[in-house]
Amino acid sequence: MDSTEYEKLRKSITACLESSLKESRIAHTRSVARLAAEMARRYGADRQKAELAALLHDMVRNIGVPASNMYVKYLGLPERYLDNINLAHGKIAAELARSEFGIEDEEILNAVSYHTTGRAGMSLLEKIVFLADAIEPLRDYPGVDRIRARAEESLDAACIEALRGTMEHLKANGIPVDRDTADAYKFLVRNQDETEQKG
Amino acid sequence: MDSTEYEKLRKSITACLESSLKESRIAHTRSVARLAAEMARRYGADRQKAELAALLHDMVRNIGVPASNMYVKYLGLPERYLDNINLAHGKIAAELARSEFGIEDEEILNAVSYHTTGRAGMSLLEKIVFLADAIEPLRDYPGVDRIRARAEESLDAACIEALRGTMEHLKANGIPVDRDTADAYKFLVRNQDETEQKG
Repeated sequence: MDSTEYEKLRKSITACLESSLKESRIAHTRSVARLAAEMARRYGADRQKAELAALLHDMVRNIGVPASNMYVKYLGLPERYLDNINLAHGKIAAELARSEFGIEDEEILNAVSYHTTGRAGMSLLEKIVFLADAIEPLRDYPGVDRIRARAEESLDAACIEALRGTMEHLKANGIPVDRDTADAYKFLVRNQDETEQKG
Repeated sequence: MDSTEYEKLRKSITACLESSLKESRIAHTRSVARLAAEMARRYGADRQKAELAALLHDMVRNIGVPASNMYVKYLGLPERYLDNINLAHGKIAAELARSEFGIEDEEILNAVSYHTTGRAGMSLLEKIVFLADAIEPLRDYPGVDRIRARAEESLDAACIEALRGTMEHLKANGIPVDRDTADAYKFLVRNQDETEQKG
């Protein structure tokens, strides 16, 4: 993407965020975008793509369950996304990015789509956006510093730590773990084991 | 609608507003609901319906233009609603009220759908919600007190005043007047003339 296109997209996405999200959600989004850009620079991913995906990721996080459900039906998403804006908002945002902002870059779209759950075989960009969302400086929950420390050394190790924390948190609260989260975790752990055996 | 159904709806709509709207928009919505209920009592409309329609009317006012456009396409709304959340949000809210909150009362749905523009042949409930939105106590714009004064005497006269103000404001800003607004105005003025001729 050339810099004119990037600037145009960044401006139109930001204007939309400002008109539609609460202050705290805008602050989180900006924080994710800053951290994602920083991680992209550090780990050799595309900084502009990381920033755009981060700006888009929570675009419809606050639309409310009824509006989310209407999109789930419109987009033909699986039933498990109904009454679950936590799972649905990334999917809806990715579709908005494509249909309304004209973004066709699959890396960006997947980073937006899977930012909540992760998935097996995440790209570098997906890992960065997933992690930046989990550990941006405004985040404060038990275990976040452990994930931040891991992210200093290895993206995969940090993703494993974040996914494990999510699964434990969900189980403790009686909420089913989404299959994409479980698959992401298994994939990274298996990959890590294989790397260690080879090493 | 019985009082159990009304209470259940009121609670679920309120929960959705609180999770999805900015504070200022929630305050406006509550203010419209209070005034609409008061006007319904005074002018002999159904208080509960007026309150529900008012709570629903701005439900998707803050979703942003891209999300609004996706709904416009989904719902097959006319092209003039594209890139125009001001016109589209009432239509989308009415559809959400029907499909997600299970509201089938056409009076409520029309009051939500036409709260921004009005239309020719508005029902009593539609006039009340249209006006309550325009003159609730938090509203502050040139001419609002004139509409408030009219509403003390006649709903129709207040609607005419509000519609005239809207059309003048739109024209002054180079924004096209929606056909429903123009039709609502013509209808009420003609009706008023006929009443005066008869009187």
